[in-house]
Amino acid sequence: MSKKPDLLHKLVDYGNSDFYPFHMPGHKRQMNSEFLKEFPNPYSIDITEIDGFDNLHHPEEILKDSMDWAADIYGADRTYYLVNGSSCGILSAICGTTSLGGTILMSRNCHKSVYHGVILNHLKTEYIYPQIIDEFGLQGGLLPDSVAEMLKNHSDIQAVLVVSPTYDGIVSDIKGIAKVVHSYGIPLIVDEAHGAHFPFGKEAGFPVSALELGADIVIQSLHKTLPSFTQTAVMHVKKGYVDIERINQYAQIFQSSSPSYIFIAGMERCIGFMDQNGNEQMKLFMERLKGLRRRLEGLKRLHLLNTQDTQGNENHSGVFDLDLSKIIIGTRRSGISGAELSDRLREQYHLEMEMCGPDYITAITTVMDTEEGLNRLGDALLELEMELDAKAGCRGFCETDRETGSKVCCGVDYGFDCGAIYAADNNKSEGLYSVYKRPDIVMTIAEALDKKAGKATGRATEKVEEKTAEKTEICYSEGRISCEFIYLYPPGIPIVAPGEVLSGEIIDTIMEYKRLGLPVQGMEDQCAEWIMTVEND
Amino acid sequence: MSKKPDLLHKLVDYGNSDFYPFHMPGHKRQMNSEFLKEFPNPYSIDITEIDGFDNLHHPEEILKDSMDWAADIYGADRTYYLVNGSSCGILSAICGTTSLGGTILMSRNCHKSVYHGVILNHLKTEYIYPQIIDEFGLQGGLLPDSVAEMLKNHSDIQAVLVVSPTYDGIVSDIKGIAKVVHSYGIPLIVDEAHGAHFPFGKEAGFPVSALELGADIVIQSLHKTLPSFTQTAVMHVKKGYVDIERINQYAQIFQSSSPSYIFIAGMERCIGFMDQNGNEQMKLFMERLKGLRRRLEGLKRLHLLNTQDTQGNENHSGVFDLDLSKIIIGTRRSGISGAELSDRLREQYHLEMEMCGPDYITAITTVMDTEEGLNRLGDALLELEMELDAKAGCRGFCETDRETGSKVCCGVDYGFDCGAIYAADNNKSEGLYSVYKRPDIVMTIAEALDKKAGKATGRATEKVEEKTAEKTEICYSEGRISCEFIYLYPPGIPIVAPGEVLSGEIIDTIMEYKRLGLPVQGMEDQCAEWIMTVEND
Repeated sequence: MSKKPDLLHKLVDYGNSDFYPFHMPGHKRQMNSEFLKEFPNPYSIDITEIDGFDNLHHPEEILKDSMDWAADIYGADRTYYLVNGSSCGILSAICGTTSLGGTILMSRNCHKSVYHGVILNHLKTEYIYPQIIDEFGLQGGLLPDSVAEMLKNHSDIQAVLVVSPTYDGIVSDIKGIAKVVHSYGIPLIVDEAHGAHFPFGKEAGFPVSALELGADIVIQSLHKTLPSFTQTAVMHVKKGYVDIERINQYAQIFQSSSPSYIFIAGMERCIGFMDQNGNEQMKLFMERLKGLRRRLEGLKRLHLLNTQDTQGNENHSGVFDLDLSKIIIGTRRSGISGAELSDRLREQYHLEMEMCGPDYITAITTVMDTEEGLNRLGDALLELEMELDAKAGCRGFCETDRETGSKVCCGVDYGFDCGAIYAADNNKSEGLYSVYKRPDIVMTIAEALDKKAGKATGRATEKVEEKTAEKTEICYSEGRISCEFIYLYPPGIPIVAPGEVLSGEIIDTIMEYKRLGLPVQGMEDQCAEWIMTVEND
Repeated sequence: MSKKPDLLHKLVDYGNSDFYPFHMPGHKRQMNSEFLKEFPNPYSIDITEIDGFDNLHHPEEILKDSMDWAADIYGADRTYYLVNGSSCGILSAICGTTSLGGTILMSRNCHKSVYHGVILNHLKTEYIYPQIIDEFGLQGGLLPDSVAEMLKNHSDIQAVLVVSPTYDGIVSDIKGIAKVVHSYGIPLIVDEAHGAHFPFGKEAGFPVSALELGADIVIQSLHKTLPSFTQTAVMHVKKGYVDIERINQYAQIFQSSSPSYIFIAGMERCIGFMDQNGNEQMKLFMERLKGLRRRLEGLKRLHLLNTQDTQGNENHSGVFDLDLSKIIIGTRRSGISGAELSDRLREQYHLEMEMCGPDYITAITTVMDTEEGLNRLGDALLELEMELDAKAGCRGFCETDRETGSKVCCGVDYGFDCGAIYAADNNKSEGLYSVYKRPDIVMTIAEALDKKAGKATGRATEKVEEKTAEKTEICYSEGRISCEFIYLYPPGIPIVAPGEVLSGEIIDTIMEYKRLGLPVQGMEDQCAEWIMTVEND
C-alpha cells in the first residue's frame, strides 16, 4: 500500500506561501479581497437539486431566472452556466451544429477540446491556418479571406469554429469572419475561453467580445480571467443560425447530472460582480496594466509583445487586436530560453507564469491583480534584464536586420537548447514556425484513432478491421497515414493530425525540428522516433 | 434587465435553517464535524495545473500517486478521479468499450447518462428488464439468466451495462452476471453510482461492491453516499476485458481540461477518511440505522421496505440484496401518496427526502447522519403513522390478501390521485408497473432523435432527410416509430424509447396510465397528448 497522499495540505501550504500567480484562475487567490473572503465553507452550501433550488438541466425557477439575467447582461438569446468548463461548451457547440460524419471548418490552432468534438462526431475537417508572429514564434490571427476561400471551395462545411483570443491574447477579426460565414448560411462558433473579461472591458480598451461582433455561439472560461472557480465557464447562444434545442441536448449530455451548486453560485456571483463593478474595475486594471507595460517597453534583451512591432509599425502582421492583459515576454535577444526565464522568475522571485515557449513566456493578469503583484513582475523583469544585458556579450542574442528583414545572431555560445533555432532561422527562407505544409487528409481523425486503438471489444468478430496501425519509424513513414497528432508545443498547431499523409517534405520538417531540439510532441513515443501509422492505398 | 439573483445567499440561508437532508450529497452538511469544518476557503486552494501539481489528464506525479493509492484501496487496476460526476464515467465506459454503431446490452432501468452514451456512439440497444417490486411500485433486481438469454441470442453485443444498486438500494447478483458476461469474452460495466459506500461497509453488513464481484468497470458517485462534494465520482477499471487506453481517451474527452483542485482534494480526502475510519464508522452507522429500522418495522399504515417481505419471506422477489441505508417507506396502505408524505415531512418536520414516487418515499442515509437526525425521521414517521391510523377508517387503504395474493382495498374515499391505482390493480392480472411490453426496435435512439431535431445546419443540402418527425396524437400513433422517450417516473423505466414502435398494446397501456393520473413523462408535450413520431415502413 502506497503512502497516504495529502493534496489538500499541499494546496494550503502553497496558498500560504509568497508565490504570486501570473496564471489561471483569474481570482488570483486574493484572499484579502472581501469578494473571495466572504465565501462560506463549501460543504455548508453544497446541496443537490432539491425543492426550491431548480434543476440546471431543465431550469424553470431560480436557475432559469439566473441564466436569463446573465443572458441579458451578455446580450445573448441564451446563456448556459457550465460546470464542466469550456470543454463541455465546445463539445456541445460542435455536436449541436454538425451531423455525424459531417464537415467542420476550424482554425488549425484550436484547443484539444475542439479536436475531441471532431472525434466524437466523426467529422471531416477543413482548416484555416493562423498567421505566425515570427518574432516570438507564436500564433497570430485568422483572416476573413482565408475563411472565405475555404467556404467557397468546400460546400459541405456545416459550421465554422475559430479560437479568438488565443492563449497569448491574439484577437482575430471576428466581425469580418462572421460576415463571411453567415453569407453561407451557417453558424460561427468562437472559442473565447481566454476572453471572458472582454464583455466588461470594452470601455477600458480591451477587445470587443465575439458575441457582439456576430458570432452565434461563444464559449468563455469564467475562471481563466475573472474571479470564478476553476472549471466554470459560460456558453452564449444567439438564434438564427443555430438550433438551440440541439445545443440543449448536448449541454445536458456533456455535463454531470449532479452539477455543483458551489460552482453555480460562484459563477452567478462572478457575473454579478463584473456587471456591477466591472466597468470601473476594468478601467483601474487597465491603468495598472499600462503602468506595468510602460516599465517593460524599454526592455531590450527581454522583449514585450506590444501593439507596435519592433519597427514601430502600429500592428504586428498577423495581429488584428491584442488583449493587453496577457504579458508576453520574448527571449530571443536575451541569451536565455523561455523556460529558463520562467524558472528564474519562479525560483528567484516566486512568480509563477502561465506558460513558456522556447522563445517567450506568457503571464496572465486579471482585474484581481494588485499593483503590488504587477510591480513584483515589473521589478523582476527589469532586474533580470540588467543581468542579461551585462552577460549579453558572451552569450549572444539575435535581432532582425532592418534592411534585409532577416535574423542576425551575435555570439555563438547560446548555452541552451532553443538557441539553435536562430542558426536554423538564418538558413531558411521562412521562419521555422511558419512552415506548415498542410498535409493531405485521407481519413477522419476518429477513423485514424480507431485504427490505432484497435477493436472496441473482443466480441465483434464479424467486423475484422483490415488495416490496423503499426509502429513505424518516422523517417521511414513517407506516404503512410498518421494515426497520431504531431505538433510543436508551443505554438501547439498540429503539423500532422490523425488521418493525414506524412509527405516527404513534412517528414523532413519534423526531422529538422528534432535535430534542433525543438519540442516535437503528441505521439505515444515521447522520443518522437516512431509513430503509429497505417498504409495509404 | 431582470433582478440580480442571489443564489449564494439562498444557499447560505438554507444551510443555516433547521432543514435536515435525507438526500445527497452524502456529507449531509454536518458542519459540526471536524472533517467538513476544517476545509479552507475554496478560493484559497483553487489553482490550476502549475509546476508541482501534476495534470489530471496526464498524471505523472502527485495526482498519479494519489489515484494509484486509491486504486490500491479499491483493488482496481486503475482508479480515475472524476470531476464531472458519474455521468462522465458512464460515457467513457460506454464509448471506450463499444464501436460507433455497435451494440450494447443494458438494463432498461439505466440512468439517463447511459442513454446519452448510447446516443453519442449511435449504438444499437438490447435490454434486460428489471423485476418489479409490486408492493412499492419500484424497480427490482436483474437476473443473470436474463443476461445469459440475451447474450445467447444476440451475437453482436460488445459490452453489458447494468445498474446496481438502484436509486432505491436494490442490488442485483453481480457475481452471477459477471460470470455470464465473461463467458462471452466481453466486459461488464456496473453503474454503482449509489453504492460508493459499499467498499467500506462490507464488514458492517452492507452489500459487496461490484468491483470485488467481477465487474470490469465500476462507476461510483462519491458525493451520493460519502462525504464528498456534489459532482465528484470515481471510476475503477480492471484489465482483461477492457482496453484501458480507450477508456483514458474518453475520460479526457468528457472532463474539463481545467479540472477543479477543490474537487480533486475533496475526493482524495474523502477516500482517505473512509480508508482510515470507514470500517469502524460504517459499523457505528449500521447500528444507528438498525436502531431506526427497528422503530419503523412496526409501521402498518406506512410501510418500510425491508429484507423480509410482508409475508415474512426472507427476501422480496426481485431483490437479490438490499442496501439498508436507503429508507424506502411505502404509502399504499396509508391513505396518502408518496408526494403527500414527502410534503408533510418537509413542511411539518423540516425533513427533506431524496425523492418520492406515487406510492413511496426514498430517504438516503449515510455515515455522516447523526443519531439525532435519524431520530427526527423516526419520530416524524411514527407520529404520522398514528395520525394516519386514526384516519384510516374513513380514507381507506389496500393490502395484499394472504390467501389469493391479490390486492384488497378497504374504503373508497382515497382522496388523492394515486389512490386510483389500487382499483386498477384489482382489475388486472398483473401489477400495473410490471406491464412492460418490450417494443420492437427499428432504429437506433440517436437516429430517431436526429429525425426529431432536424438537420444539423442549414447548409448540408445534399443530404435531404426523407422522413422527418411529425407531431402525432398518441392514441392515433399505432404502428409509428417514437422519436421520444415515454416513461412513468418513478420507476423511470422507458415504456418506449426513441426508435421503438408504438404498438396498439403499448398505446393502450399509456392511455390507461394517463386515465389513472399516473406520471407519464419524457415527452416534449408535458400533457402527454402528442408525441414526435415517424412513419414505419
